[in-house]
Amino acid sequence: MAEDKKMVEQITSMDTDFAQWYTDVVKKAELMDYSSVKGCMVFRPYGYAIWESIQRDLDSRFKALGHENVYMPMFIPDSLLQKEKDHVEGFAPECAWVTVGGENQLTERLCVRPTSETLFCEHFKNVIHSYRDLPKLYNQWCSVVRWEKTTRPFLRTSEFLWQEGHTMHETAEEAREETRRMLEVYEKFYLETLAIPAYTGKKTDKEKFAGAEETYTIEPMMHNGVALQGGTSHYFGDGFAKAFDIVFQGRDNTPQYPHQTSWGLSTRSIGAIIMTHGDDNGLILPPAVAPIQIIIIPVAQHKPGVLEKAAEIRDRLKAYRVKIDDSDQSTGWKFSQYEMKGVPVRLEIGPRDIESGNCVLVSRVTRDKKVVSLDNLENEIADMLKQVHDELVARAEKNLAEKTHTAVTMEEFIETDKTQGGFIKAMWCGDENCENKIKDVTGGVKSRCIPFVEEQLSDVCVCCGRKAKHMVIWGRQY
Amino acid sequence: MAEDKKMVEQITSMDTDFAQWYTDVVKKAELMDYSSVKGCMVFRPYGYAIWESIQRDLDSRFKALGHENVYMPMFIPDSLLQKEKDHVEGFAPECAWVTVGGENQLTERLCVRPTSETLFCEHFKNVIHSYRDLPKLYNQWCSVVRWEKTTRPFLRTSEFLWQEGHTMHETAEEAREETRRMLEVYEKFYLETLAIPAYTGKKTDKEKFAGAEETYTIEPMMHNGVALQGGTSHYFGDGFAKAFDIVFQGRDNTPQYPHQTSWGLSTRSIGAIIMTHGDDNGLILPPAVAPIQIIIIPVAQHKPGVLEKAAEIRDRLKAYRVKIDDSDQSTGWKFSQYEMKGVPVRLEIGPRDIESGNCVLVSRVTRDKKVVSLDNLENEIADMLKQVHDELVARAEKNLAEKTHTAVTMEEFIETDKTQGGFIKAMWCGDENCENKIKDVTGGVKSRCIPFVEEQLSDVCVCCGRKAKHMVIWGRQY
Repeated sequence: MAEDKKMVEQITSMDTDFAQWYTDVVKKAELMDYSSVKGCMVFRPYGYAIWESIQRDLDSRFKALGHENVYMPMFIPDSLLQKEKDHVEGFAPECAWVTVGGENQLTERLCVRPTSETLFCEHFKNVIHSYRDLPKLYNQWCSVVRWEKTTRPFLRTSEFLWQEGHTMHETAEEAREETRRMLEVYEKFYLETLAIPAYTGKKTDKEKFAGAEETYTIEPMMHNGVALQGGTSHYFGDGFAKAFDIVFQGRDNTPQYPHQTSWGLSTRSIGAIIMTHGDDNGLILPPAVAPIQIIIIPVAQHKPGVLEKAAEIRDRLKAYRVKIDDSDQSTGWKFSQYEMKGVPVRLEIGPRDIESGNCVLVSRVTRDKKVVSLDNLENEIADMLKQVHDELVARAEKNLAEKTHTAVTMEEFIETDKTQGGFIKAMWCGDENCENKIKDVTGGVKSRCIPFVEEQLSDVCVCCGRKAKHMVIWGRQY
Repeated sequence: MAEDKKMVEQITSMDTDFAQWYTDVVKKAELMDYSSVKGCMVFRPYGYAIWESIQRDLDSRFKALGHENVYMPMFIPDSLLQKEKDHVEGFAPECAWVTVGGENQLTERLCVRPTSETLFCEHFKNVIHSYRDLPKLYNQWCSVVRWEKTTRPFLRTSEFLWQEGHTMHETAEEAREETRRMLEVYEKFYLETLAIPAYTGKKTDKEKFAGAEETYTIEPMMHNGVALQGGTSHYFGDGFAKAFDIVFQGRDNTPQYPHQTSWGLSTRSIGAIIMTHGDDNGLILPPAVAPIQIIIIPVAQHKPGVLEKAAEIRDRLKAYRVKIDDSDQSTGWKFSQYEMKGVPVRLEIGPRDIESGNCVLVSRVTRDKKVVSLDNLENEIADMLKQVHDELVARAEKNLAEKTHTAVTMEEFIETDKTQGGFIKAMWCGDENCENKIKDVTGGVKSRCIPFVEEQLSDVCVCCGRKAKHMVIWGRQY
């Protein structure tokens, strides 16, 4: 079809230029728009609807575990940010500062929140007095600002949307459990909702969150061999509690510091969806977050009965997010358009289909067509949506496996990175200097995580040859 | 009951000091907490859950009318804000300005959005080219900042949460219809969801939104005779479209400017709930937005079978937001606590109730007890929740009627305001000078709105005696 071809030609092929392909998809699928505000982006309806699906899904996972939503101020006074030393050192360089309010110079400048640990701690001090007040399991949906020099839609922007969970616990053990539990929530969410498998594990000290004792991460692998930090979960111990003087009376009547966690997942996850599942025809959306799950395209829609039948089918499928496109665009244009937008299932219905009591279903992933009986439509739709999800998982698992390599020598490491990219499993002595050296030598490869189950690839560090302490998964990152 | 008495004593009576009563309720019902960030507040779980209910309800009303959610940047460059003259004049004095980003002085300062017309217009210019691109029916849920000197939780804070709808239409007529339609959505929402009746009408030119041609408002009456602007809907004509050079090709192939609306409702609506329905025992929440609709209090919960029965009842009522309090607090404390939190229906279940196959339902509004058969529980609960809503509406309607007065002379006006407060209907010549004079003379009374149906109270302006143009509803405001 001529129109089909034309639309497809509008986007750059992934293999030709992955970065340009990404930008093209983001624009042509109408996910976002640029704005004159440097580093900030506009979420268009289709892009924001994906985030709304993500919010609904994650929010119900959080609430099922007893978390409650709250909302903290968007500003952090300079003195409040200063309270925890490591934290302020990590974030101060990327803060945006409000210095004027209501035409007056402020006596104390306010940081637009880059993350809200300090605000939560200030509040925790007011509401935590006894072990009976614990745990506090809070979450917040909001936007945060971290000043960026170079930006890329969804992946790196000065303002982004996210959720940040902040919890306080009676014991270190409980807080550690929460930290791991929430990483598991992210892992399940990525797999079950976004159809994205990933590695999970612990960050090295160099890569952990500013102020945290331990940071856990989920690391999916993009189509082009670059990793993306998909979400992080932090254990803080009682460092912030001490800095903010949060004390509760324990079961033994002694004053104690509570133990803290935080965990966050952002709109960057939309970037992960695009770069994990997309193809040269555009976006492919996992059914669970697709703003339109089924697009009904009436064929020869001017013929009597076609639009009526399409509407009847839409009403039968109202358990799903379903839409009819009865615009005056050509059928070929519509096919391309909804492929670009990554709609999981296309349903074609025309006069001949109606006559034979059938319709045609097309999977966005495999692009296979299936003629199905209208009598059995609900089951067929459920099956195909499940197939789309399963096929996306299978392809992503294949990609993850194919892009995971091992290296026991630095030569192997450099060669693998240069020729294949992806994740490289390699042994590490535990010294930050080796992380720095690997980054320098490769021009950007960093430790992604120490997985929960480590393999013994060799006895010595891939970089310095000293005794190895851990197997690390290394990679380039967005 | 001693505990009951004790809790109630913790809050100031409405009649003694309404402002203190409000502050007490807001704190004791655990809706919010203060923070060290001047003018900003912390939404605690119970307060935020009310906002989540409001969001769910309003969002579905918006989407049912075809509106789509988007998200715009939180910053507005100075030059962008300057584009529409009236708009910038209205908002510049209350802007918070970011002047430093990532340790560098910005070349252009950024305003933290006080409202987002300018950002929407910049985007509209990119996506509106033809009449086929219209209407654009967008909405955004976000926080905005307007620098305030004196603040009061929910009613007036430097940062607040809201939704802002922004729409673009092919014709002025369509845009005017949208403006009125969205005011009606607010009116229905206030009545059907918040159980709050209100006056609606048009703002005078003096009181309209900066940059708007027409502003419509919904004005509920608080318990103490003070009005609250509950939501506004603005018609902009093509003023912003011209300022931002947004042009589309019309059906007749000529270039045309689209016609614009915006409409917003904020967390101030939570203040309206508190001050319309609350009493000296605390908050009273309309069932539609109550985070807990039914609180189950097990009586003599240590007796065998009581907690099991309570859990069984909770499971039967899972269509509602229901909670059991099986903590070791006294029954009296629990009664007071959930009255303070405004839970619409209390369900008491004890050994004797179980024996007789009954339970006790108590309405938060009337505090009437009703012994009901467990066999008929679902119906009884549905009935009582409906009764709570209806009773709240009836009381609020009575309050609104009792607090609406008329005045034909300035003496009457001043006397009514001084002795009774509330709304005063009075004739007006249309001159802003009379609005200013009335405000000066009364020390704060302003025009609230010109209602859609005006009465002819007299032929002359209450203030200057010249020919009257409109009947205006006047009042003091939060």
